[in-house]
Amino acid sequence: MIKMENNKKYSKILIIGLGLIGGSYAQGLSKKGFNLYALNRSQKAIDYAINNNYIIDGFTFDNIPNGFLSSFDYIIMGLYPKAMMDFLNLHKDELNKNVIITDVCGVKQVFINDVQNLIDGEFIGAHPMAGREVSGIENADYHIFKDANYIITPTEKNTEKGINFTRMIGEELEFRHIAILSPQKHDEMIAYLSQLTHCIAVTLMTSRNSEQFINYTGDSFRDLTRIAKINENMWCELFLENKKDLLSQMDLFIKEILKLREAIEKEDQETIKNMMKLSTERRKKFDNK
Amino acid sequence: MIKMENNKKYSKILIIGLGLIGGSYAQGLSKKGFNLYALNRSQKAIDYAINNNYIIDGFTFDNIPNGFLSSFDYIIMGLYPKAMMDFLNLHKDELNKNVIITDVCGVKQVFINDVQNLIDGEFIGAHPMAGREVSGIENADYHIFKDANYIITPTEKNTEKGINFTRMIGEELEFRHIAILSPQKHDEMIAYLSQLTHCIAVTLMTSRNSEQFINYTGDSFRDLTRIAKINENMWCELFLENKKDLLSQMDLFIKEILKLREAIEKEDQETIKNMMKLSTERRKKFDNK
Repeated sequence: MIKMENNKKYSKILIIGLGLIGGSYAQGLSKKGFNLYALNRSQKAIDYAINNNYIIDGFTFDNIPNGFLSSFDYIIMGLYPKAMMDFLNLHKDELNKNVIITDVCGVKQVFINDVQNLIDGEFIGAHPMAGREVSGIENADYHIFKDANYIITPTEKNTEKGINFTRMIGEELEFRHIAILSPQKHDEMIAYLSQLTHCIAVTLMTSRNSEQFINYTGDSFRDLTRIAKINENMWCELFLENKKDLLSQMDLFIKEILKLREAIEKEDQETIKNMMKLSTERRKKFDNK
Repeated sequence: MIKMENNKKYSKILIIGLGLIGGSYAQGLSKKGFNLYALNRSQKAIDYAINNNYIIDGFTFDNIPNGFLSSFDYIIMGLYPKAMMDFLNLHKDELNKNVIITDVCGVKQVFINDVQNLIDGEFIGAHPMAGREVSGIENADYHIFKDANYIITPTEKNTEKGINFTRMIGEELEFRHIAILSPQKHDEMIAYLSQLTHCIAVTLMTSRNSEQFINYTGDSFRDLTRIAKINENMWCELFLENKKDLLSQMDLFIKEILKLREAIEKEDQETIKNMMKLSTERRKKFDNK
């Protein structure tokens, strides 16, 4: 971990959007001694953050003091992609020309070029791959980052300074693993590892009424459907913002399950067993990580 | 739990097939004071069971003493369905005419009528819904039953005596939940809750090379693929023996994921969000169980 002395230059940070993730950033970074300020749509989350000493001060979006935004060299956007773009479009001229802005969004390609062209300062993407089944700053808990990945997604427009700022954030919040991926690779990875798995879990629950079997469910069914409890507004937006990659990954999966279906119908044991052997071999590698 | 005194009539039991499940039955029931004997294809598992005091004595399939099989009123078949049918076909005339036989198979309809017609005694189906990622009696551990369901699958040919015997086995092995389902309902439930989920986990691993993303996998991907490490001989046999039900459940799932795919392609937010809301609502009910 970087020592606090080295982080003095970052000591004043603005967080825009105090939801579960923005709130958990505020909670964790305030514990580490940073001077945090916040902007949020509603007053309630700001009051909560002040009362819990997460932030020094904060304002609602329709009540931002003159000169407030331009006083920050470092900003973390805690908003969903669409809301983030709306905010930056509206306030781009109020930002410090040298500002470094990072985000917490689960998709990147949909906005990264636009936002990098929009602002005079530097925008550097980052994705904390963590969450909870509940939302809102009242449920903030920066310990959710301990077992999670933090992915930094620079483009050719980013600088060492921008990457170092996001890396510092990831380290201070004690993520298990900090990695760098291009926005393209990030979105492909997210489509496969996260979005496709959520599609599958949702589909397992909606494909039939399962209530009659509720007493018989074992670990495997519960494991596969744990993420079927889903925030429909956030996930629907993220699915559509990553539509091209998600459809590609869904198509790979659908093609393959149709192959397995056909093999079962034809009682083609060789194909079935070969798929199972490949699956076993690949999955074993995950246990050592 | 039934007291041991009440179980004296059951005290001598033969287990045929000392794999992981047969071996775990032998381990658990011997601890409860039953006098157990065993038959197994190979000598090695018999030696292991004798050395660990799981059984009093045992023989290989090609070395069964005269009059041995007919001396048992209670038999537990620890074999896969095909091997069980082969054994019973070969030895049906050596069985006690009043024998009660139960099994541990994961599918029922494929053999239940045949086996009930085959033997003079009573065959009563039961399915311990438990397992481990490893096989063989060396990995036997009857504690795996503590969190598991034990399903008894009687037909109109079964008697109170047969059902009581299997229920006693389920109670002595301390299953969390003992239930009765028809063979039809059992197979439908298994196709949906267990076989379809294994199909999905296997397919997720085989649909693309995931190794490049191994460092980025979070809980959701790991949860969905934990059961992708799979014993291909057992599961291929069980899939094909439950082909009709499995294909029905796969078709429900495939139809539904194609619906979600189309909604994403068309950016039909209403359909996407409605599926997510239904999925969330249904899955929540599982948390209270």
